[in-house]
Amino acid sequence: MSSQVSLPQGFQTAGMSCGIKQNGRPDLALFVSSIPASAAGVFTKNRVCGAPVIVSRSRVPTSSGRAIVINSGNANAATGEQGLRDAEQMTSSVAATLGCGTEDVLVCSTGVIGVQLPMTLLQQGIPSVVAALGDSPRHLEEAAAAMMTTDTFHKISSREITVNRSRITVTGAAKGAAMIAPNMATMLGVIMTDAQLTPEQAHRILQHGVDRSFNCITVDGHMSTSDTVLLLANGAAGIPTSEPLEQEVTEAVRQVCEDLATSIIRDAEGADHFITVDVAGFADREQAERIAREICESALVKTAVTGADPNWGRIVSAAGYANVPFEAEQLSLRINGVQVYRAGTPEDFDEADLSRQMREQRDVHFELMLEGGPCSGSASARFWTSDLTAEYVRLNSDYTT
Amino acid sequence: MSSQVSLPQGFQTAGMSCGIKQNGRPDLALFVSSIPASAAGVFTKNRVCGAPVIVSRSRVPTSSGRAIVINSGNANAATGEQGLRDAEQMTSSVAATLGCGTEDVLVCSTGVIGVQLPMTLLQQGIPSVVAALGDSPRHLEEAAAAMMTTDTFHKISSREITVNRSRITVTGAAKGAAMIAPNMATMLGVIMTDAQLTPEQAHRILQHGVDRSFNCITVDGHMSTSDTVLLLANGAAGIPTSEPLEQEVTEAVRQVCEDLATSIIRDAEGADHFITVDVAGFADREQAERIAREICESALVKTAVTGADPNWGRIVSAAGYANVPFEAEQLSLRINGVQVYRAGTPEDFDEADLSRQMREQRDVHFELMLEGGPCSGSASARFWTSDLTAEYVRLNSDYTT
Repeated sequence: MSSQVSLPQGFQTAGMSCGIKQNGRPDLALFVSSIPASAAGVFTKNRVCGAPVIVSRSRVPTSSGRAIVINSGNANAATGEQGLRDAEQMTSSVAATLGCGTEDVLVCSTGVIGVQLPMTLLQQGIPSVVAALGDSPRHLEEAAAAMMTTDTFHKISSREITVNRSRITVTGAAKGAAMIAPNMATMLGVIMTDAQLTPEQAHRILQHGVDRSFNCITVDGHMSTSDTVLLLANGAAGIPTSEPLEQEVTEAVRQVCEDLATSIIRDAEGADHFITVDVAGFADREQAERIAREICESALVKTAVTGADPNWGRIVSAAGYANVPFEAEQLSLRINGVQVYRAGTPEDFDEADLSRQMREQRDVHFELMLEGGPCSGSASARFWTSDLTAEYVRLNSDYTT
Repeated sequence: MSSQVSLPQGFQTAGMSCGIKQNGRPDLALFVSSIPASAAGVFTKNRVCGAPVIVSRSRVPTSSGRAIVINSGNANAATGEQGLRDAEQMTSSVAATLGCGTEDVLVCSTGVIGVQLPMTLLQQGIPSVVAALGDSPRHLEEAAAAMMTTDTFHKISSREITVNRSRITVTGAAKGAAMIAPNMATMLGVIMTDAQLTPEQAHRILQHGVDRSFNCITVDGHMSTSDTVLLLANGAAGIPTSEPLEQEVTEAVRQVCEDLATSIIRDAEGADHFITVDVAGFADREQAERIAREICESALVKTAVTGADPNWGRIVSAAGYANVPFEAEQLSLRINGVQVYRAGTPEDFDEADLSRQMREQRDVHFELMLEGGPCSGSASARFWTSDLTAEYVRLNSDYTT
């Protein structure tokens, strides 16, 4: 998570202000591969989705990906036919400037919804952002900063894989949930690598990484109209991808995704605590995920953490309504390593001490385990969330028309 | 919802303090039919459930129901084998005092979890509460009050059906979600009627009523370990139940359930607004329910209402992730009768005026409609919820050990 992360070979990025945000903050980001790259994408499943989602989704997977253009300050969502034309126009302007095909450019937008994009500003900005491209850490930071809405810090991460004397790099940037009215809780991520992947490999690796990171975080369970994570793999490292190497790239992408996803939770609006939820001992991962998600989305669990209350009752009862079969008398729970519930009944523990610990530390760890019975198994899942504070309510109910 | 509601013929109730609540408030309620009644129950689906749920669930439907005993102040949940023995003991004590079979008595408990019941207090209290039974409105109010945990008012409702010169009465009492730590969000309801129903009819009628009332309210989506609604139908009105009469009884039970359920929302902790969500135009009721539930459970929707923000984006995007197929460009939304979104795009409306209305009025009404497309249909659903305020967070994060 150092800011001194390197771009993979053959990539350049840029970020700048083109005037969409009236406060002059950066609002236009560009990620470019100098050679055609395999491109993959994972998108919001919301039926109500932004125009850029519709455009980008139709263009991946592909073997000819060249660029990703992102604006912040306006989500181009709930904007009808005009919105679709504008999203396509953004990509064709980038393509014309770069000299590639329109279909080789992907697009994301984040910000207010229901307002048409200021296309004049974007049309003026695109040649400037292309002219600003570079491959230094600063260029990556500027691109990451131009994706932000109400994030308080930019989010970048990188991993390197050494193969003989050569190197493969996986580098990503993301922005988090910005839920202040009238924005939506949009999460965007861009992953770049100089590994050599087919479009199908790129999609499989990205989906795996997203399933274990961005899909394992939840602030309030509200799925945005614009959530998008894109991967460009341009092969510029010049290393053929053996099966063991594919495993390494898969793991590097997952790690970068996890870094970015947990940064989003650490930057969640109005949050006091960072909560890691481990669920283990279930028949399959999907069951463990369902339970972890219910715990993470329970307002009662989150407010208990806010109040530094080791309230095992709220946690195990959230597990109980996740629609997963298990024997309640086989369920156990640790909070910050302290056994508070075992085999379906509360344990004696030093409640005041655990509460003090929860009050003093930012990180809280729940470990819920099914420890036997015909429904148990060896599958686990890890989720992350933040607590629910009065400040969250204030931020999200602060209406300023 | 008048407090001057009558009990159906052949029923007596009582409520008193037996000392479970240390503040001396009433904590023991009893509902008795003088003759065997058809009894039905609908219970929490939580895998982690209280001992009384296990005991009562095993005894319905039955044609020999005689009594329902309820204590507040202790949920008898997460109490293991001892909890089960205590729940059974409560019913056998009532049965011995009334002179009926143990199996003919149902039991509910609500309050703190993970603490064994104070059985000495209950054993002493049960003969007293039997001695206090009566059939006046005051007796019903006392029983309803003894079910309460953090409710601020007792909840009772009644409907009458006139058949020739005779009368059938349906009367209910409920308690709402009490979520202050370490309590759970438990909802309990008791419906009594002197209609003549088979156990199967009783179950069908109760399930229908609950599905359109208690199952359509949500404060925070946290399903309790103890939620229970019970129906006793003793036939004391002496009127055979024709098919048209069964329809009337079904509707009366539904109305009583709706009165009680909406009272629970009006009494939700820390809530400023009462929100009614109507979803229409979908292929089946289950789809409409899924969408209504997602809207009601979205923290972003609820905080927008708190802030008097007519934020259509949060509402339609919550509909979009309900996992229901529909054409986004056919979706429309009214807030308090004002069209704010039509055919997938925002409408021009007087935002400041609608916001002022939302600020000044306690009731808010959303109407989401699918107005065409191959996924549309004629099914609808109505849900109720409250908004999410800083006061809710304060109440639920207020840890007082």
